Amino acid sequence: MKVIITGGFGFLGLHLCKRILAVGELIGADESAHVVRKLVLFDAGSPPKDMPRDSRIEVRVGDITNADEVKSLVDEDGIVIFHLASVMSGQGEKDFDICWRVNVEGTRNLLEPCRGRHGCKFVFASSGACFGERSDGPETDTTKLLPHTSYGMTKACMELVINDFTRRGFVDGRVARLPTVIPRPEPNSGLPAAFSDILRQPLKGEPAVLRLKPDMKHAVCGFRVLVRNLIHLANLPAAAFAESIDRCMNMPSLSVTLQDLAESLLKIVKDPSKLGSITYEPDAELCGKLSTFHKNMDATRARALGLMCDSSAAAIAADFAAEYVDPLLLKPVVEIYEEPRHWLAFSNEHVRVFRVENPPGDTTLMHVHRVDSLYFFFTAAQVQGTKLHEEPKDDILSCGEVRYGDHGNCLLTHKIYNKGPPVMMCLDVELAGFQNTQTDGAAAKRPRTEAANLPTGLRLTKERPGARVHDLDLAAGTSWAGRIPFARALFVVHRGAHVRGELGDRLLKPGDVFFRDGPIDMKLEVLGKRRDVAIWVVELLY
Amino acid sequence: MKVIITGGFGFLGLHLCKRILAVGELIGADESAHVVRKLVLFDAGSPPKDMPRDSRIEVRVGDITNADEVKSLVDEDGIVIFHLASVMSGQGEKDFDICWRVNVEGTRNLLEPCRGRHGCKFVFASSGACFGERSDGPETDTTKLLPHTSYGMTKACMELVINDFTRRGFVDGRVARLPTVIPRPEPNSGLPAAFSDILRQPLKGEPAVLRLKPDMKHAVCGFRVLVRNLIHLANLPAAAFAESIDRCMNMPSLSVTLQDLAESLLKIVKDPSKLGSITYEPDAELCGKLSTFHKNMDATRARALGLMCDSSAAAIAADFAAEYVDPLLLKPVVEIYEEPRHWLAFSNEHVRVFRVENPPGDTTLMHVHRVDSLYFFFTAAQVQGTKLHEEPKDDILSCGEVRYGDHGNCLLTHKIYNKGPPVMMCLDVELAGFQNTQTDGAAAKRPRTEAANLPTGLRLTKERPGARVHDLDLAAGTSWAGRIPFARALFVVHRGAHVRGELGDRLLKPGDVFFRDGPIDMKLEVLGKRRDVAIWVVELLY
Repeated sequence: MKVIITGGFGFLGLHLCKRILAVGELIGADESAHVVRKLVLFDAGSPPKDMPRDSRIEVRVGDITNADEVKSLVDEDGIVIFHLASVMSGQGEKDFDICWRVNVEGTRNLLEPCRGRHGCKFVFASSGACFGERSDGPETDTTKLLPHTSYGMTKACMELVINDFTRRGFVDGRVARLPTVIPRPEPNSGLPAAFSDILRQPLKGEPAVLRLKPDMKHAVCGFRVLVRNLIHLANLPAAAFAESIDRCMNMPSLSVTLQDLAESLLKIVKDPSKLGSITYEPDAELCGKLSTFHKNMDATRARALGLMCDSSAAAIAADFAAEYVDPLLLKPVVEIYEEPRHWLAFSNEHVRVFRVENPPGDTTLMHVHRVDSLYFFFTAAQVQGTKLHEEPKDDILSCGEVRYGDHGNCLLTHKIYNKGPPVMMCLDVELAGFQNTQTDGAAAKRPRTEAANLPTGLRLTKERPGARVHDLDLAAGTSWAGRIPFARALFVVHRGAHVRGELGDRLLKPGDVFFRDGPIDMKLEVLGKRRDVAIWVVELLY
Repeated sequence: MKVIITGGFGFLGLHLCKRILAVGELIGADESAHVVRKLVLFDAGSPPKDMPRDSRIEVRVGDITNADEVKSLVDEDGIVIFHLASVMSGQGEKDFDICWRVNVEGTRNLLEPCRGRHGCKFVFASSGACFGERSDGPETDTTKLLPHTSYGMTKACMELVINDFTRRGFVDGRVARLPTVIPRPEPNSGLPAAFSDILRQPLKGEPAVLRLKPDMKHAVCGFRVLVRNLIHLANLPAAAFAESIDRCMNMPSLSVTLQDLAESLLKIVKDPSKLGSITYEPDAELCGKLSTFHKNMDATRARALGLMCDSSAAAIAADFAAEYVDPLLLKPVVEIYEEPRHWLAFSNEHVRVFRVENPPGDTTLMHVHRVDSLYFFFTAAQVQGTKLHEEPKDDILSCGEVRYGDHGNCLLTHKIYNKGPPVMMCLDVELAGFQNTQTDGAAAKRPRTEAANLPTGLRLTKERPGARVHDLDLAAGTSWAGRIPFARALFVVHRGAHVRGELGDRLLKPGDVFFRDGPIDMKLEVLGKRRDVAIWVVELLY
């Protein structure tokens, strides 16, 4: 498979490139994985000094407004294109024409040749700037686009064009409406740059002088989660979007103020006195402009499709510090909420579910597990775990494996290195409601609860003080009905398909979770003929 | 002033042309009226045989996709452009490229040269097709645009571009999102053509065979009201749009079914047996497609800006019959609701307010007034009134004149011919709540109600059994406060300005009406230094 990343020399482009190469494969139009044979980085600028060295990379310096040049890139079927190249907001306001040429005509130049090919996927980076100024609530996937910049206008136009190209079958488009991605490792002149400056500068021990007010909300996300989400978006089957003609959606983001980000630094740095100073010198005009930017982007649709969100501003800051500044600045151990590869996927008073994804070659920060957890593994991966003050130990994870961690009695503080493809992917289900009994180690001695009468098909596979795990396997084309007698249950999807019934009319994907109070009269119909469904039904014993 | 109409040889273009030439002037960027010196009809087709003969018309056969050709049209400052030329939905689905070239690049060709000129206004015909298929309620001005056709996509893109051009000061754009304009005098192949066929064919005595179901809702308007609204939109001061960056709005429309239209014919034709037959042969695919079209377009913003709506489907049918078929088919007298120059502007249980606009050279249908009415005149016009079975009589109307019609005791059945510029414009305020007392002619004998203590500034100018009319004149830059002691009052704006207070923070325009239950503690601040405000305060004595 050939992959093209435009704007490939940029911050996001390079991170995306590295991540794709580390994983080594993407899902094609046929819904199966294809090895990435060639990855073209197309950009108008000069290749960066730290360009990754990999024989699969082809560097192409070129002009997106040159139709012939761009056409020559799309020289085979089934290419996956990540179109990130763009004139940004500030330049667009200075020069309308270049904004139109690059963002509209350039995008069209890249879309056009896809019409002559089969099975090309086109992932486009749109922007929250499409929304313009809004006073009323969060920007949702159904909020009217009313941009206040030429940049936002061109992005909104391309959303419309890509929807139409997809509807007509010219290309398989997926559009990610991006919040502000922070922190950029280098200063830039953009208005939302303050949201990067406030993390980068103090972490580098340099002063941050901010021209915005500390209490202005702005939608942001970390670069790691965004790169992960762009790949996830590319990998989704086309059927996942079938509910709507709209292929565009808000990316998950945090709505934060500069103040929030400043405070997040204190949660992760060892010695706050080493941080550079933060000064606010608000400029009325700039504050006025920022108020026209995305403040709070609702990403319900993206979340339902499995796109993730940073768990906290601290996680974004910690991730940046570990990679770009000096890891020794950080506290030696961070909380799970602050570990950038742990994403809070679901939480209520009973459970907190983190989705953990660690790409090949990557290492989590040293983090602490304080609550008894069930771990569900979705990939076969070779990892190296290192507990605090201990030597690394190899571990082999199996797809479908379920483990239990008795952290309520014994904290687990560790980091995980993923030795090679694939991405290590697991769910960490914290049994939050199980905490109360553990102050004196009583959990382990908890009397065994009698197993209730299980309906046919449900098979107990693991039992621990706080929970029992049951398997439910359903073949393609079959349906199942039964009364699940549990007072509280968490359904964790291991293998997914399109289903109809108690869990909705939807495409289940590995890692999807559903919480239900019981007993549950459950019906589940597995649509289609190709895919089986496997679900872990977790009975919560508290 | 120079005016350009693209798509000028089309049905709408020619009607717009005739109406502009009859009125003879448009409001320029300086907010004053300018004589239309030249009107360019630009179109790719052949000039029609019935091209109006007028020395002001310049016919230009040309190609909107030829940038140089289009640029040569925009050769002076202060041009008012009505851009109607477009590839329509059906052709756009067959050929994406021509749809993009004409609708996007062609529009850009016309917008570009405006950047180099001063004070050009750009009125663009967008379409309800921008909305695509929606199941949830009416399409409003804040509904997300999610077109299901390439045609709709290109229109939605141009809305974004025109907003941005306007924001940047490149042009003064105003975008009318059109419903389906009916009835077209000639059959066409478009899907919503059925909504024209069902009126035209029976009125011509020919069969209508409809491929759609009779109960499918669709948003329509008559061509006369649309032409009027496009001119009104062009004439509005830029300040009227200041509340939002969005220059695009739904045009007022009726949400009707084919059945509704068929029934409307029975209200206006003399002898239903002369109508051609109507047969429904619904085609599932076509019905499916129509369900993706605009069903019910909410035009709250346009209405607040003074844009009007046909009072009924019958009015649309009657208008068409009078102009295109055989006026003798019609009943000799129609109700006000069915008279196409009377538009219902406001109604409640107490009053029904019709806005009457009759352009120069135009004659209303013979219609009947059954309810006592106050008439407020907004233009100095020379007209000829013809009562049923009587000879025509000349009449001179003054701007600011108020008349009373005692129709409750004595029906008025008449038609009005406007002898020359300007447009005859008046409000017909039916005193609906005054009806009850009139069966025995008691209205005229109604005992005189004592006038309440009037606050300073309010001056009684007319008294009739059902109502008293008071003047309230406020100079620019002043403010006024007082207690208006009436139990029910209708405020009719004679001369407008931007005001703040009881009537909102808004630009008042001649003919705006506001109903209030009293007593009313009223404050009104007239903003700006140029414009005075004059309001008729109508006390309803029932």
